[in-house]
Amino acid sequence: MGRVTERRKVIRIRDGAVSSRPDTLVAEEPLEIRLNGKPLAITMRTPGDDFALAAGFLVSEGVLGGQGDLQNIVYCAGATADGSNTYNVVDVKTAPDVVIPDITLERNVYTTSSCGLCGKASLDAVRTTARWPIADTPPVRVDPDLLASLPDRLRAAQRVFDRTGGLHAAALFTEDGELLDIREDVGRHNAVDKLVGRALQNGDLPLSRTILLVSGRASFELAQKAVMAGIPVLAAVSAPSSLAVDLAAETGLTLVGFLRGTSMNVYAGEHRLALRTAAAQG
Amino acid sequence: MGRVTERRKVIRIRDGAVSSRPDTLVAEEPLEIRLNGKPLAITMRTPGDDFALAAGFLVSEGVLGGQGDLQNIVYCAGATADGSNTYNVVDVKTAPDVVIPDITLERNVYTTSSCGLCGKASLDAVRTTARWPIADTPPVRVDPDLLASLPDRLRAAQRVFDRTGGLHAAALFTEDGELLDIREDVGRHNAVDKLVGRALQNGDLPLSRTILLVSGRASFELAQKAVMAGIPVLAAVSAPSSLAVDLAAETGLTLVGFLRGTSMNVYAGEHRLALRTAAAQG
Repeated sequence: MGRVTERRKVIRIRDGAVSSRPDTLVAEEPLEIRLNGKPLAITMRTPGDDFALAAGFLVSEGVLGGQGDLQNIVYCAGATADGSNTYNVVDVKTAPDVVIPDITLERNVYTTSSCGLCGKASLDAVRTTARWPIADTPPVRVDPDLLASLPDRLRAAQRVFDRTGGLHAAALFTEDGELLDIREDVGRHNAVDKLVGRALQNGDLPLSRTILLVSGRASFELAQKAVMAGIPVLAAVSAPSSLAVDLAAETGLTLVGFLRGTSMNVYAGEHRLALRTAAAQG
Repeated sequence: MGRVTERRKVIRIRDGAVSSRPDTLVAEEPLEIRLNGKPLAITMRTPGDDFALAAGFLVSEGVLGGQGDLQNIVYCAGATADGSNTYNVVDVKTAPDVVIPDITLERNVYTTSSCGLCGKASLDAVRTTARWPIADTPPVRVDPDLLASLPDRLRAAQRVFDRTGGLHAAALFTEDGELLDIREDVGRHNAVDKLVGRALQNGDLPLSRTILLVSGRASFELAQKAVMAGIPVLAAVSAPSSLAVDLAAETGLTLVGFLRGTSMNVYAGEHRLALRTAAAQG
């Protein structure tokens, strides 16, 4: 966690008064992800949990589906002229029997903080084929009141080490609302990759009975990451995009947006919400 | 602007009451950017201003430096099996004398909403060489009170067509606070690329006497985009990252964060702020 934040001098202006003091900033550094020795992606991320980030990224890209697909992950030396280890390059070695999708090997893939599409080389490939369908049997049933309680719990957990105001958070809850894991990163996609990668390392994929909560908006790529990890419910504090809603509808993902106070919007997969039907109206 | 928003059915839950109604969502669709016929990048963006987006992206990548570098931009047909035009693929043709940086031609570059590093193929290339230094002579001098007034003006301008809550905004102001342009997009990097691309199309690069205001955080990539466009002042409503601050300090960019009410933090380039020196203390 040593490099999660960094200190810089800042000049503060408050109602015209000027002062100078050290300030804590969220650390941002590039991470190059290599797959079996071959450069695959560069993402701007908050250092820490780099192995989980790389593993989760490769779940989103359809390369890894379970713990057994992973042989090991190491930091690479030699990224600098003097051969020292910057801890900004990781190499993911897959198990011998893992078939790497052609599309990933054929093309270099570059990505940044908010990435996920990057593994796909053409528009035709935007809708990634999921490794497994979202298959929660019986379907996860979530009470809206339980969902409504999650953002406060995310913020409470986040407050512990967010002194910077610069971090996106993602949290994984059980269907009963138990907090399983929380990750923060300068890039919200990285926060989700770190969650998913950690689950892969723990042998917990697919995440069939979980709820993924994100602190910001629900983009296509976040919805894609949920689908690729087998997560049945994605809830966002802010708005979803049209393409995120379309992907959710296509894949059976429950997508909740504007989760604030006791209010929320359900954009797809409403069968997982325990709605009081008497109040429903068209 | 026809596809800036899309309508979807949504189930609203408010204090336990359930209703169903159409909702307006920000449109998100992939855009493939081709350079002289060769696929270069894919970004998830809000449709509209696609030519400006492509042009601005290529300014950030160091390919375009002025209006004269651009021959034309067209939508490509043939992206679908039946050869129809999806308006999701644009081809940028450079003028005959434009030298394309090797790095861009050697490698495929993939990007998404929050991208900017993507044009660079290795960690060594993260700090892009700017096409021109930030050269405001005499230096732009901004009164903190003027800076403090900009977020409200951004929000006022944004409110006109943001009915979705899902859009990031970026605005360009003169050093005197006159609003020059505002762009919104599902990806904040796209909003900046659209501003910069429009300026290139209008022959306004470098933007040596302007202030760039962004609605969210100041990441490395947003700072990079400001530097590449020759913008001397970047102000953000939220936090900057450590790498954004480092880049600003290196390049002479003035970087202001947490611009809220009458408060702000100045992380670099404070010589452009008209500070009341009597109040300054170490």
